[in-house]
Amino acid sequence: MKDFSFEIHKELPNCLGRIGTIHTPHGDILTPAFVTVGTKGTVKSLTPEQVKGTGAQVIIANTYHLYLQPGDETIKNIGGLHKAMNWNGPLMTDSGGFQVFSLGAAYGNKLGKIANKKDEELLLSDTAEDEKPKIARIDPNGVMFRSHTDGSAHYLSPEKSIDIQHNLGADIIFAFDECTSPHESLHYQKEALERTHRWAKRSLEHHKSKENHKTQALFGIVQGGRDETLRKESAEYIGSLDFDGFGIGGSFDKEDMDKAVEWCNSILPKEKPRHLLGIGEPIDLFGAVEKGCDLFDCVSPTRIARSGMFYTKEGRANLLNQKFREDLKPLDENCKCYACQNFSRSYIAHLFHAKEILGATLLSIHNIHFVVAMVDGMRETISSGNFEAYKQDFLKKYYANS
Amino acid sequence: MKDFSFEIHKELPNCLGRIGTIHTPHGDILTPAFVTVGTKGTVKSLTPEQVKGTGAQVIIANTYHLYLQPGDETIKNIGGLHKAMNWNGPLMTDSGGFQVFSLGAAYGNKLGKIANKKDEELLLSDTAEDEKPKIARIDPNGVMFRSHTDGSAHYLSPEKSIDIQHNLGADIIFAFDECTSPHESLHYQKEALERTHRWAKRSLEHHKSKENHKTQALFGIVQGGRDETLRKESAEYIGSLDFDGFGIGGSFDKEDMDKAVEWCNSILPKEKPRHLLGIGEPIDLFGAVEKGCDLFDCVSPTRIARSGMFYTKEGRANLLNQKFREDLKPLDENCKCYACQNFSRSYIAHLFHAKEILGATLLSIHNIHFVVAMVDGMRETISSGNFEAYKQDFLKKYYANS
Repeated sequence: MKDFSFEIHKELPNCLGRIGTIHTPHGDILTPAFVTVGTKGTVKSLTPEQVKGTGAQVIIANTYHLYLQPGDETIKNIGGLHKAMNWNGPLMTDSGGFQVFSLGAAYGNKLGKIANKKDEELLLSDTAEDEKPKIARIDPNGVMFRSHTDGSAHYLSPEKSIDIQHNLGADIIFAFDECTSPHESLHYQKEALERTHRWAKRSLEHHKSKENHKTQALFGIVQGGRDETLRKESAEYIGSLDFDGFGIGGSFDKEDMDKAVEWCNSILPKEKPRHLLGIGEPIDLFGAVEKGCDLFDCVSPTRIARSGMFYTKEGRANLLNQKFREDLKPLDENCKCYACQNFSRSYIAHLFHAKEILGATLLSIHNIHFVVAMVDGMRETISSGNFEAYKQDFLKKYYANS
Repeated sequence: MKDFSFEIHKELPNCLGRIGTIHTPHGDILTPAFVTVGTKGTVKSLTPEQVKGTGAQVIIANTYHLYLQPGDETIKNIGGLHKAMNWNGPLMTDSGGFQVFSLGAAYGNKLGKIANKKDEELLLSDTAEDEKPKIARIDPNGVMFRSHTDGSAHYLSPEKSIDIQHNLGADIIFAFDECTSPHESLHYQKEALERTHRWAKRSLEHHKSKENHKTQALFGIVQGGRDETLRKESAEYIGSLDFDGFGIGGSFDKEDMDKAVEWCNSILPKEKPRHLLGIGEPIDLFGAVEKGCDLFDCVSPTRIARSGMFYTKEGRANLLNQKFREDLKPLDENCKCYACQNFSRSYIAHLFHAKEILGATLLSIHNIHFVVAMVDGMRETISSGNFEAYKQDFLKKYYANS
């Protein structure tokens, strides 16, 4: 695609990690980069200027949610998603495939990106708050599903997903895939993977047949669950197609994730960027970077913010804890974010106790900045050669109390 | 008080209106000025920079709410309310007297500043959302009341109100008063007015005995209900005391308000600023300015914003109306606010339908800006001599559909 390219500036020794720059029609993304989630075309509780102020370079919005409401045609009429949400930086949309998984096999099973993780905020995609009984049915051509809001019936196919994403107009879009439940049999995993591969090809062909392929980059998604053979087969096949970059999808056990990512990235063409979908824990991000991922997104920073949780260099803390009521310190010492530069824990705790919206806004700004700054640190130390020391120091402090 | 003064620049002919400047330790207020409400030490859903961006010059916070939570001592420990909420412009606090009224005589009667107005958002003070059965009992020395949140018992007296307001540290504070219900007998109104007058004197004496009188201006409050004799008596008495300015309190019928304000302002010393408490409808603001008020505050702009209502030059509109779903225009044409400069009605309607917090933020910014800009127009046209034409034109368009 014109106006889209990826440069690698330096590689980490003895692993797959690297730093680089993704050039997009709406500006550059220095990688590795944390992608901020704006599910419904807004990073929850923040203006686009506030998002930019956190240091965030790129936002990912949700095809499934925006298709249902306000509708991709409405967004197109406004002039595309960049214009609608007044974000003039790089923008991505997922394909809707993960939501099909949430509504189908994963529904009611509390399965998320990391299947066995107990932290509730990591368990499900951003649909978790408003889920009601519903169903998704997969056939060879696509997926019939019912809206999680009004029960209306809809059909998503690779072509339909690409059409919606063309209407939304993000800089980077994704092929339609099936994210399988880790509880499915190997037989089903194989069948689903074949489907994902056929859908990848159809997504790519449909994309290339439209004008939009000149302004939007398409990433293919590698699946294959936790099975080494399937993962490698998927990386080989998806990697062989003419995508502009790749996503790595799936629902993992924590210990399986690093391995699965390494299987994929050892095979995927090194000169194209790779996005690990839906990962946000510090230890996972360090692992993903070492294993060669350039992008990752997660709802955690904003979701936990709305319930009063915030990141510190010594781990996560709950601002509703009584001890913060009289605490005059910023959320995290030496933090450069807007919330820490201007407000005390005591005042922000008051906002939460008083149920004032500004509390969620300030913690969201802080939490996004925290993760963005952590990844900035990875880029800087890969550049300067101190990555290993940075990682050890960061993780030791962060997990000291857990 | 040092660092506090009021200059009158020009007067409107044939009425009591004027334009001027109030100098405070945290900057100037060009008058007439709309005072933005930040009940719990935050203008709901906005950062202080967003408040400033609307053109708002001054914020009023609530003594009763901040005393109960987080506590005025906590605010003092943070370094005062300016520092806590990161607002370095002029700041006011009310005395808690109006909340006593809300919790006492007015409780359950849906009485607000304008007693017979049906618009729900104007009916009660900002306590409306979380009211539970409770009580306030008035005695000669003060008021015993139960917290609207946890039922705990508290006692507010003139001295206590001033102490709380000294801890909060706003530039302009108010004497403790009793706002009576319009349904009380004349006998009770007289008794209450005598109490308010004694409390005014005690507030002033207590204030003057403390160091804070050098950095905080104290306004006395005129009461007297709708009775001409009582109103005038109150203006005479309160006006004779050494206050830095005055508030006009009370719960009015719409038609009575202009008269009551005129009675007060014909008597109050002209060289001191006057604040009409809790008024926000355009027609009321024009009336208040003509009758010589320099300041007024109201929760309406932010409260109606959170339910999807927004101001336009052609009156109020409800963004949840279906017709706005595909409307590409800004909230109000030619509006210079951040929301109108950057977002369409269609997108903001989507935010409301999707229950996204940013919707309330954008409408709050727009609504505050709308009222602030309307009052800016009053200042400009009083200065240029076109006030009457501006008023006629504004009100004709605004109320054309009502």
